[in-house]
Amino acid sequence: MKPILVFQTDFTYKEGAVCAMYGVVKSVDRELEIIDGTHEIPQFDTWSASYRLYQSMRFWPEGTIFVSVVDPGVGTPRRASVALTADGYYIVSPDNGSLTHVHDAVGITAIREIDENVNRLKGKGTEGVSIFHGRDLFSYCAARLASGIIEFEGVGPAYTVEEIVMHTMHRPKLREGRAEGILEINDPNFGNIWTNIPTQKFLEAGFKYGEKVNLTILHDEKEVFSEPLIFDMSFGDVSKGEPIIYNNELMLVALAVNQGSFTDTYQIRYGPDWTVVFTK
Amino acid sequence: MKPILVFQTDFTYKEGAVCAMYGVVKSVDRELEIIDGTHEIPQFDTWSASYRLYQSMRFWPEGTIFVSVVDPGVGTPRRASVALTADGYYIVSPDNGSLTHVHDAVGITAIREIDENVNRLKGKGTEGVSIFHGRDLFSYCAARLASGIIEFEGVGPAYTVEEIVMHTMHRPKLREGRAEGILEINDPNFGNIWTNIPTQKFLEAGFKYGEKVNLTILHDEKEVFSEPLIFDMSFGDVSKGEPIIYNNELMLVALAVNQGSFTDTYQIRYGPDWTVVFTK
Amino acid sequence: MKPILVFQTDFTYKEGAVCAMYGVVKSVDRELEIIDGTHEIPQFDTWSASYRLYQSMRFWPEGTIFVSVVDPGVGTPRRASVALTADGYYIVSPDNGSLTHVHDAVGITAIREIDENVNRLKGKGTEGVSIFHGRDLFSYCAARLASGIIEFEGVGPAYTVEEIVMHTMHRPKLREGRAEGILEINDPNFGNIWTNIPTQKFLEAGFKYGEKVNLTILHDEKEVFSEPLIFDMSFGDVSKGEPIIYNNELMLVALAVNQGSFTDTYQIRYGPDWTVVFTK
Repeated sequence: MKPILVFQTDFTYKEGAVCAMYGVVKSVDRELEIIDGTHEIPQFDTWSASYRLYQSMRFWPEGTIFVSVVDPGVGTPRRASVALTADGYYIVSPDNGSLTHVHDAVGITAIREIDENVNRLKGKGTEGVSIFHGRDLFSYCAARLASGIIEFEGVGPAYTVEEIVMHTMHRPKLREGRAEGILEINDPNFGNIWTNIPTQKFLEAGFKYGEKVNLTILHDEKEVFSEPLIFDMSFGDVSKGEPIIYNNELMLVALAVNQGSFTDTYQIRYGPDWTVVFTK
Repeated sequence: MKPILVFQTDFTYKEGAVCAMYGVVKSVDRELEIIDGTHEIPQFDTWSASYRLYQSMRFWPEGTIFVSVVDPGVGTPRRASVALTADGYYIVSPDNGSLTHVHDAVGITAIREIDENVNRLKGKGTEGVSIFHGRDLFSYCAARLASGIIEFEGVGPAYTVEEIVMHTMHRPKLREGRAEGILEINDPNFGNIWTNIPTQKFLEAGFKYGEKVNLTILHDEKEVFSEPLIFDMSFGDVSKGEPIIYNNELMLVALAVNQGSFTDTYQIRYGPDWTVVFTK
Repeated sequence: MKPILVFQTDFTYKEGAVCAMYGVVKSVDRELEIIDGTHEIPQFDTWSASYRLYQSMRFWPEGTIFVSVVDPGVGTPRRASVALTADGYYIVSPDNGSLTHVHDAVGITAIREIDENVNRLKGKGTEGVSIFHGRDLFSYCAARLASGIIEFEGVGPAYTVEEIVMHTMHRPKLREGRAEGILEINDPNFGNIWTNIPTQKFLEAGFKYGEKVNLTILHDEKEVFSEPLIFDMSFGDVSKGEPIIYNNELMLVALAVNQGSFTDTYQIRYGPDWTVVFTK
């Protein structure tokens, strides 16, 4: 079977952009299967684009092609690329930081810049358009790759993976009885916030499910939260409305309020300027 | 053909959760067809989850498998189950009230608790995760059932349908010239509100399309609205901006403002504490 | 292969309406492929419905069937129709202005009113419902057409294309060094606003990429914006936060703020009462 195309963008479904992209795919090959990853990445946020790829990719069949279009630099000299990951997925995306987490955690083994002369939509009157590569370049090229019209080599010229545009990654620091990291991303629906600290290392540092842990959160090095909270396996291990430190869906240490919002309750956001320190 | 999987959750599309779930399904069996029912059930609202299943299920082919994940008790001892309805659909869901309307109106004839030893995702590093049964348990088990890898008996141990967790249902009371019920649910997009009174019984009680009806709404037994309104077949039977009593899509008596919002205009919500009385 | 069904409505995914419609399609024919165009057309806004069809239709394979349900007059005598376009697409829609742009720009060559006696859902207890033609009429009829159960002639009686309900279209006026038009529609996600002025004609009038252009915006003939702005090919041709006149995805002159929102920054909306004048 031909690989599935999974799309993520910051376009929303409020107008016809997604519909136009999907039409391009189906016009290349009616058989191709399209799945919405999400079209609600925060606008221009290549960090979130990068994280969402990392969060969901591993659950898909090998060979799946991810089309990620969060592209604030569309029409500027940033590269439009197709990356091949160490575990056998393709990512069709602007090379603008959107590849960071997958390259850091899994590894990108090869990357090619899309050749617009070959892999750009023609015949629809959009040859003069510079602002919708999601439709004219990424969807079209991804569909050709999925359909087998081109192989990976047919995308365009290869460049070295060292050239991939990367956001700065922050490593957690753990020692017996202490773990320090950043608030790396949120769950914007439920108001949970995820650290970059692996739960396995957290457990190895001596923290135990069911015990209280001292949590301090700093924003720009200024303390904004300091409380002992229960560390446990699920939200329901504390009462409704109570905060909890829990093991999230990616086996990372995370913060939640049971049936509430940690981010709204405590006005905590995420990013490299948000530091967390856990002590026993 | 293999049964379709129709999903409803309170996850939204704001991050990668839905994408991860669908990846799990496709990794079980590439052929399976996934349809979004909705991912915008109000958070933790098992009443709405229950109603939305009831609202849409009958329109699907027999054998369709509904995966409903509104799961405030994830990781607690609430049961994760697969139910079989009297009209031949499957519902894969936490047994937490989400099955209420279908069980009440159609009937659930058999239910089984998902055996985590057999029907939980393995090999993706999520064995230690307790907070995402939508991905690790419900999607995975539903995909196995749809694919034919397991039969219904392979889900896990059966339990009696009398044990199903039910919300309290409220019955309307009708007599000649009078109908009393509750505001059971809303249409959150258009601001319409639906009662639990069947239009057929309403007509039998002597109410007639095109005639004025006295409507009183009580909240916690206190009157909050009392006006004679036209009862008719469609919104356009009153002027734009005017309120109307109408026959809704499920043949229930409902309240709307033509091209407006009844709920916003009159500050009316829904639930068992919202009573409606119609008199001639 | 059977034609794809592309849906657009103003229903959102907040409740079970879309799910019920798609169930109807799949109950007619399991093989039919359904794609979300958008379910976030602004409520009752047949102008936007019309524009979104025009915006995306050309990118789909010939024969694709678009089901457009923005239907403020549901249950009133407005016609429920299937239109055939000059380029070979079908549109299943209320004939209420939703066909305007496609008919104006491409041409509708034949149109038929849906015969409710033949092409309305039966056997699901919704025969008495007047307010959900999206489910009971449009989806059902579209599925029968896509499936080959009926031909176009089987939709119902033909009527002349001159009878199609049209919104008023506004034509741009261009001469050397001057272009006048309206703000025809927005991109509600990114806050861009699109004029009705073709970029090709704009270039022919002497405007050049990379040069400053004097832009005046009038609302109800009162000046609300007057500034010289750069006209260029993409957002990134000005600094972040700066306004720009650009060539949009449909080769029309449009207004944006780079990585910002033109509509929010300058409080500019769209519609026939919003006039734009560009001069050198």
